[in-house]
Amino acid sequence: MTEKNPLNGINVEQMFSAIEFFKNQPALAKFKFRATNKWIGGTHNQATVKDFYGAGQEDVSREAMMFDLDEPPRLCGNNLGANPVEYLLVALSGCLTTAMIAHATAKGIEIRSVESKYEGDLDLRGFLGISPDAEVGYEQIRVFFKIDADISADQKEELVRMAQKYSPVFHSLTKQTPVLVQLERK
Amino acid sequence: MTEKNPLNGINVEQMFSAIEFFKNQPALAKFKFRATNKWIGGTHNQATVKDFYGAGQEDVSREAMMFDLDEPPRLCGNNLGANPVEYLLVALSGCLTTAMIAHATAKGIEIRSVESKYEGDLDLRGFLGISPDAEVGYEQIRVFFKIDADISADQKEELVRMAQKYSPVFHSLTKQTPVLVQLERK
Repeated sequence: MTEKNPLNGINVEQMFSAIEFFKNQPALAKFKFRATNKWIGGTHNQATVKDFYGAGQEDVSREAMMFDLDEPPRLCGNNLGANPVEYLLVALSGCLTTAMIAHATAKGIEIRSVESKYEGDLDLRGFLGISPDAEVGYEQIRVFFKIDADISADQKEELVRMAQKYSPVFHSLTKQTPVLVQLERK
Repeated sequence: MTEKNPLNGINVEQMFSAIEFFKNQPALAKFKFRATNKWIGGTHNQATVKDFYGAGQEDVSREAMMFDLDEPPRLCGNNLGANPVEYLLVALSGCLTTAMIAHATAKGIEIRSVESKYEGDLDLRGFLGISPDAEVGYEQIRVFFKIDADISADQKEELVRMAQKYSPVFHSLTKQTPVLVQLERK
């Protein structure tokens, strides 16, 4: 354990001051994240992420970030991007990793490396609507973490538990997230 | 309604032959999608998508696709990529769009354009572990679709329902998806 600042590349003082900030003003902890999507053609579409709302104000400071989504030829696409269910694994991977690092850092644990692997089972008959018995979503997602740090195996297990406990994407998947989809009528 | 091939940029014959293929051989409809993640430092990590398993075989034909994930400065990051909960919206956006297009195409409906907007509510106190009452995952996600096609408002509503009914990411979020997270021990 060390008390370097930054620890794990995180400015510890800044992190604890952010925690105090949101603890004292819960309304400012309410964030809204956003994306837009434009269909390009076939299974190819493009998503954009730019602004968000948080800490009581709109943040429009970031450059727009664009993401191409497509399917492989086997699924009638042209490989112009990863497919949506792969992006879901990307989201989960980043979220578990960041949750782990943030909470390790808060505990003063120095991490040398974290790597993880994700695999999800999808029965295409669900998407294609050809079998009512087939699940449409992922049947199961498996995640494996490798952590390099001067801590015990039990402490590593504890980090894996903390990653799950505090990851928004993990919770969004494992609980039922309300998703309201509407047609915009002009 | 037209019967062009391709319709909406999708090779209709190829799509229907894929449907027959998976209908007749359900075992081949079992896909496994994957990602890996490597922590870079702080809130920055990098995910890679490359191979998948499907139609009874490994597909390693794609080039690796890399995704940077980071947080904005307000959340102790350096804007080196969209954040994990934003990637989740990207995944949802691509999936609803592709499900809508695929099922519209199967019905012979020609689409001129589809655009959509996503917004999710996140209470940062959940991630930070400073309030047991705060939800960790998205509290709610709202989606708005704009569809341009020569069909009635009711038919557009029907496309919005089909997008939800057949989208794997939508189902993965709105149902409880089992996510098993383990420490890899050497």
